Amino acid sequence: MLEELKKEVYEANMELPKRNLVTFTWGNVSGIDRKEGLFVIKPSGIAYEDLKPQDMVVMDLEGNKIEGKLNPSSDTKTHLELYKAFAALGGIVHTHSPHAVGWAQARRDIPCYGTTHADYFYGPIPCSRELTAAETEEDYEKNTGLVIIETFQNRKINPIHLPAIVCANHGPFTWGKSAAEAVYHAVVLEEVAKMATFTELHDPKASPAPQWIQDKHFMRKHGPNAYYGQGKS
Amino acid sequence: MLEELKKEVYEANMELPKRNLVTFTWGNVSGIDRKEGLFVIKPSGIAYEDLKPQDMVVMDLEGNKIEGKLNPSSDTKTHLELYKAFAALGGIVHTHSPHAVGWAQARRDIPCYGTTHADYFYGPIPCSRELTAAETEEDYEKNTGLVIIETFQNRKINPIHLPAIVCANHGPFTWGKSAAEAVYHAVVLEEVAKMATFTELHDPKASPAPQWIQDKHFMRKHGPNAYYGQGKS
Amino acid sequence: MLEELKKEVYEANMELPKRNLVTFTWGNVSGIDRKEGLFVIKPSGIAYEDLKPQDMVVMDLEGNKIEGKLNPSSDTKTHLELYKAFAALGGIVHTHSPHAVGWAQARRDIPCYGTTHADYFYGPIPCSRELTAAETEEDYEKNTGLVIIETFQNRKINPIHLPAIVCANHGPFTWGKSAAEAVYHAVVLEEVAKMATFTELHDPKASPAPQWIQDKHFMRKHGPNAYYGQGKS
Amino acid sequence: MLEELKKEVYEANMELPKRNLVTFTWGNVSGIDRKEGLFVIKPSGIAYEDLKPQDMVVMDLEGNKIEGKLNPSSDTKTHLELYKAFAALGGIVHTHSPHAVGWAQARRDIPCYGTTHADYFYGPIPCSRELTAAETEEDYEKNTGLVIIETFQNRKINPIHLPAIVCANHGPFTWGKSAAEAVYHAVVLEEVAKMATFTELHDPKASPAPQWIQDKHFMRKHGPNAYYGQGKS
Repeated sequence: MLEELKKEVYEANMELPKRNLVTFTWGNVSGIDRKEGLFVIKPSGIAYEDLKPQDMVVMDLEGNKIEGKLNPSSDTKTHLELYKAFAALGGIVHTHSPHAVGWAQARRDIPCYGTTHADYFYGPIPCSRELTAAETEEDYEKNTGLVIIETFQNRKINPIHLPAIVCANHGPFTWGKSAAEAVYHAVVLEEVAKMATFTELHDPKASPAPQWIQDKHFMRKHGPNAYYGQGKS
Repeated sequence: MLEELKKEVYEANMELPKRNLVTFTWGNVSGIDRKEGLFVIKPSGIAYEDLKPQDMVVMDLEGNKIEGKLNPSSDTKTHLELYKAFAALGGIVHTHSPHAVGWAQARRDIPCYGTTHADYFYGPIPCSRELTAAETEEDYEKNTGLVIIETFQNRKINPIHLPAIVCANHGPFTWGKSAAEAVYHAVVLEEVAKMATFTELHDPKASPAPQWIQDKHFMRKHGPNAYYGQGKS
Repeated sequence: MLEELKKEVYEANMELPKRNLVTFTWGNVSGIDRKEGLFVIKPSGIAYEDLKPQDMVVMDLEGNKIEGKLNPSSDTKTHLELYKAFAALGGIVHTHSPHAVGWAQARRDIPCYGTTHADYFYGPIPCSRELTAAETEEDYEKNTGLVIIETFQNRKINPIHLPAIVCANHGPFTWGKSAAEAVYHAVVLEEVAKMATFTELHDPKASPAPQWIQDKHFMRKHGPNAYYGQGKS
Repeated sequence: MLEELKKEVYEANMELPKRNLVTFTWGNVSGIDRKEGLFVIKPSGIAYEDLKPQDMVVMDLEGNKIEGKLNPSSDTKTHLELYKAFAALGGIVHTHSPHAVGWAQARRDIPCYGTTHADYFYGPIPCSRELTAAETEEDYEKNTGLVIIETFQNRKINPIHLPAIVCANHGPFTWGKSAAEAVYHAVVLEEVAKMATFTELHDPKASPAPQWIQDKHFMRKHGPNAYYGQGKS
């Protein structure tokens, strides 16, 4: 079942080591079929070089495994909550890419210092609050998802305009209209996190790019009159 | 038309990913035929692995597309203004290489701390001022070019002696006598930007190299009595 | 003799350059056969590209060479002391991986800033005290081992829960149930050391991850109810 | 003539890009035949991928080109002065490797923070003083050599015990008993320069490794009773 989606999710997963975003098995990608109400996710703890499209695990939105011999990623419940809360998401990625983790561990938003950031993320990339001891104990992965959702709701951010978060003490989640786009955003996030690090080395009190530059860059790629690229695909 | 130039510009573009200067499609190279008054530039948003010489877009200096099925780079108007203002330019490059972006986002000139820098860039690499909201709104890419030109004029810098700038909140532009030389300078800029970062880590109050060292190194490569290399080619 | 173990130790050694943990010959891996009371270790100063499984040197726990034409690693006595003191160890690795060395040279523990760390190391990674002049003079490599053991005993750390140390002014040792697992931990240590560096760049006063997060992540991989991966292998 | 030495020097040069020590043509290696009183050096400004053993230029110790169609490296006079002053040198390398340049541009010695450093360099790696305007004007490359020699003489350092220097505002020179060993030291220097950077990030006031550790590590590799490796080769 969902053979096409499994292949897409498999290929999106294989981009992670190719793009130097993961060490060992530290990352996972999922993709959803909204019509069927099912999502496909990487199995837990399998080496990328051993992964095959048919190893992908099919889950429903109640958290039941529908198909697959292997256990799904230990982060499956986080993906699940995000798919339920954010209807526009087609794919989700989690990595431990080191620059994004650096910001997550410092529990800081990544400021929007320039156009590379503004081209994809409309505003600072939020850092979530820490989970409480009770949330951690009760249902860690589910509550990780709920805290991400809370962050976007409290700050009134549209997750499609800002397809990334760094979870405090943990690392990044990114998403997109598809699994492939979610991986694309994971690559951009790591690059932007690195550039922000360099920026603060040169000026510890650097200010964000002016709002008009942020507006311009995001809109020329994503606004109704976007003119970057070769038109709608 | 301009088949030779298209091939040169194509090959110069392909150097960018090979030299680790670009992620995805974040960069573009152009080259100009001064006799014809036409320049050739990378199309917008096309993956480097899919690029072919015949995809290069031919533009005139009024900004009209003369040949090509694809849209030219979204930064085309910036290239255009630079070609019009700086008659010695044969090629132009724009990238988001991360160390150069770090300086651009901190809105700082890159000081000339040593001979690697002085071998190619005669003085600190300028950081442009920010565009105003009006300039951004009105014609962003054209005004990006005009602000670069303004920077060189205000500071009385000869763009051939200092073939690079970092645009505030954005990233680097470099140029040269040809598209290939412009890419060469983009590589040097990123390396010099990295070395300057390390320098300030070791001494936050480091001073630039003495003027006589800057003179010596620039002149032994570029002066009338240059003696680096195998003579004029 | 011990052909299977020699092959394992050889392969574990060859992972070090593949994972970018060593320059030249700066690293060594050993593995032990607890039943025979013998361990197998890389020969000293041999280039990885010239290494063969049959070059591995067999040692007993009194420090006698039992088999092998080449001299064992100059760090053999350190491995020996660790095998004698920590009965659960199956393999040991020493490298000069640069981020771990940075912490060792600064003589600082690596704080547990997040889940990447907590997934493998239960608490801060200790930095040993310096050896005294007398310890250095008398039997340097043996005393390096004894100081590692002293660190774990003084701090009451279980070496299986925290399979890594950085030795002051020197570099990291890691270990595991096998030579392969010891190398795995060497890779994780370098990654975690790098992430901690980035964390402190973003917040020089960053605090460790809360204890409940450290507990949760270590336990979901290593506790009695571990649920990461595909079950016991 | 000197075909064997030309091949050695050629191969040593080709190690520089392989070890990521040079960008473009920024580096050069020479080797000397002490009996003949001739040294062999890379030609100036030739791309490494185009280099051939027969392109190496043969020089005498008065600075005359004895054989070769190409101009020798622009740094030839620096090599020449070092060969004349330091009789034990068999090979010399100059690069612009970025971490070593960072220290050179900050005009700081690289402190001996640990054993990786002490294994090869006995004491801090000196940073030379700046050349004066007169020295730069008169004979820049020759005076670069003389200032290196002055540094070692003033500080009473044996260049064989400390086969490296960073020249203020410029970059590193390293040497050894052969061209290959000089390149080996260039690799170690860059690695040690990087580790020292990380060390100071973790503790801006880090102190050098204790003298007894520096003695021990240097001596176990280079002293009369050296026991690292497989014995004298």
